[in-house]
Amino acid sequence: MKLNTIYMLSLFTILFALPGCDQQSDKTEGGDPLPSWNEGDAKTSIINFVKDVTNESSHNFVPADDRIATFDNDGTLWSERPFYFQLKFALDRVKEMSADHPEWKNNPLFQAVLDDDIKKVLSFGEHGLLELIMVTHAGMTTTEFEQIVKDWTSTAKHPRTNKLYKEMVFQPMLELLEYLRANEFKTFIVSGGGIEFMRPWTEEVYGIPPEQVVGSSIKVKFEMTDTGPVLRRLPEIDFIDDKEDKPVAINKYIGRRPIAAFGNSDGDLQMLQWTAAGDGARFMMYVHHTDAEREWAYDRDSHVGRLDKGLDEANEKGWTVVNMKNDWKKIYPFD
Amino acid sequence: MKLNTIYMLSLFTILFALPGCDQQSDKTEGGDPLPSWNEGDAKTSIINFVKDVTNESSHNFVPADDRIATFDNDGTLWSERPFYFQLKFALDRVKEMSADHPEWKNNPLFQAVLDDDIKKVLSFGEHGLLELIMVTHAGMTTTEFEQIVKDWTSTAKHPRTNKLYKEMVFQPMLELLEYLRANEFKTFIVSGGGIEFMRPWTEEVYGIPPEQVVGSSIKVKFEMTDTGPVLRRLPEIDFIDDKEDKPVAINKYIGRRPIAAFGNSDGDLQMLQWTAAGDGARFMMYVHHTDAEREWAYDRDSHVGRLDKGLDEANEKGWTVVNMKNDWKKIYPFD
Repeated sequence: MKLNTIYMLSLFTILFALPGCDQQSDKTEGGDPLPSWNEGDAKTSIINFVKDVTNESSHNFVPADDRIATFDNDGTLWSERPFYFQLKFALDRVKEMSADHPEWKNNPLFQAVLDDDIKKVLSFGEHGLLELIMVTHAGMTTTEFEQIVKDWTSTAKHPRTNKLYKEMVFQPMLELLEYLRANEFKTFIVSGGGIEFMRPWTEEVYGIPPEQVVGSSIKVKFEMTDTGPVLRRLPEIDFIDDKEDKPVAINKYIGRRPIAAFGNSDGDLQMLQWTAAGDGARFMMYVHHTDAEREWAYDRDSHVGRLDKGLDEANEKGWTVVNMKNDWKKIYPFD
Repeated sequence: MKLNTIYMLSLFTILFALPGCDQQSDKTEGGDPLPSWNEGDAKTSIINFVKDVTNESSHNFVPADDRIATFDNDGTLWSERPFYFQLKFALDRVKEMSADHPEWKNNPLFQAVLDDDIKKVLSFGEHGLLELIMVTHAGMTTTEFEQIVKDWTSTAKHPRTNKLYKEMVFQPMLELLEYLRANEFKTFIVSGGGIEFMRPWTEEVYGIPPEQVVGSSIKVKFEMTDTGPVLRRLPEIDFIDDKEDKPVAINKYIGRRPIAAFGNSDGDLQMLQWTAAGDGARFMMYVHHTDAEREWAYDRDSHVGRLDKGLDEANEKGWTVVNMKNDWKKIYPFD
């Protein structure tokens, strides 16, 4: 009897001292899984949702396989001001490539880039931006482009913070990604940004592997060369992953409907609508840029990330709106 | 002292009786991970490759994140005779839909389908097949199509075996998929078949979730209806996932190069070439259909799954060629 007691006691001790297979209990019990979030409705709504869908006795329980969460990138996971970081990448590339392109001196668009005259660059409109993207993003192989992106993200710094662009990611969102994964969610990026501009660094920065990154793309072509096959990037748009095409991309790349979706602009509205329209518990969140001091403040009057319809629909439907200034203790990891 | 001994003993017992977190040691040590494979070069080459790339002290070690394996579907994971099962699905759909389409009586293509005259159907060539695919695969929402596929795969039976099509999957390949996953590979399908024709059943049958299925696709469109958003399937080809476009699809959907690729026809050759061209240890395998009795025998003279160039290149480069008749103890799970 006594031996039995000792055995049971040691069994108990060992079972509870062993490192758990179930990450959930590691990450969400004890300690605050979202330490950079101030207490408030936004934080509470996230935690309540996650507890609900992972609770087997809840009628909202969702099996782990179906716990798909999709995140916009620009303005949702990292900053997007003064303009999309990928555009900065393109402008930097033009400068780097200009030595080999003396003819650009006579081209007002390229000359504006070389003069750092952003206003003038933007005055060329969508057509001008497309030209810059094609010149800087196409022509090389996929392997070469990956290296170019890695080099840029390891060196280029934001003019305001003097930090690498990939450091200007939101600490509260990093915690949220980690918290969801600890609860067996599969986290995806669904961004208007270039898919091959994101993949080289999303695993390191967000813990999101390339195969869980969805974005805009240009066409590529298989070529057999003397030294083996390559994929050549062509100056031709394949897919723009924005607005109505975000649900299309989710259907194409992921093949199931998310149960949680996170965005910051009207470009994300249809993704949130599509997520909301599924059966069972759903979580839709907008990041509202309200912090002019620590980040930027903008919504309806922005040249990036406009939030006109989305803000109204979020309020109307009771979606979660994060007020960066009030809800986030910390903006960037380096703060 | 005695208590300590008991404690240690119970500790030992419990530790080794607990279900392991590490699947690898469960699945590959002790027991044969590939029981339906006869001993021989094919089986040995697979096991040696897996042991090599998962061995941290090998110079061929590959971190778990990079263990990407891609599989063709038709003829590689399931049979494809007498013709692609998805074509059978389309023909069955035409019959089911014909009551609502009296005009088909006057259309020789559709009449041939209704008459079960496959030779005549095929005589209309690619254009005819495309028309049948569009009529049967487009027009409905993605949710409706998913249900149609689920209904068909749960009821339609193969004329030769009288088994469900989804039962006509290769038992040795199921073991191989499981063996790779137990060794922390991520397994993907990269098939010429329709992506939304496969996704409703690949998780149940192969353990491959929708987001790891790549295939051919038609365009879909986001529509806001009175009852919420839907994705409408359009009668327009989006992407044909075959030959040169298999590496393109791998780049687009997965974003990294596989270290192992499995196919059975020339439609898979570029995928194998692309896989082979990466750095480090690589594994390329062709399934050669050599078993006229238990399955089918065909290679160079087939109207499906031709293996002209692939077989030569495999032999030349020392890729693994599975001889179904000799290498596989069992073909289907029901054998």
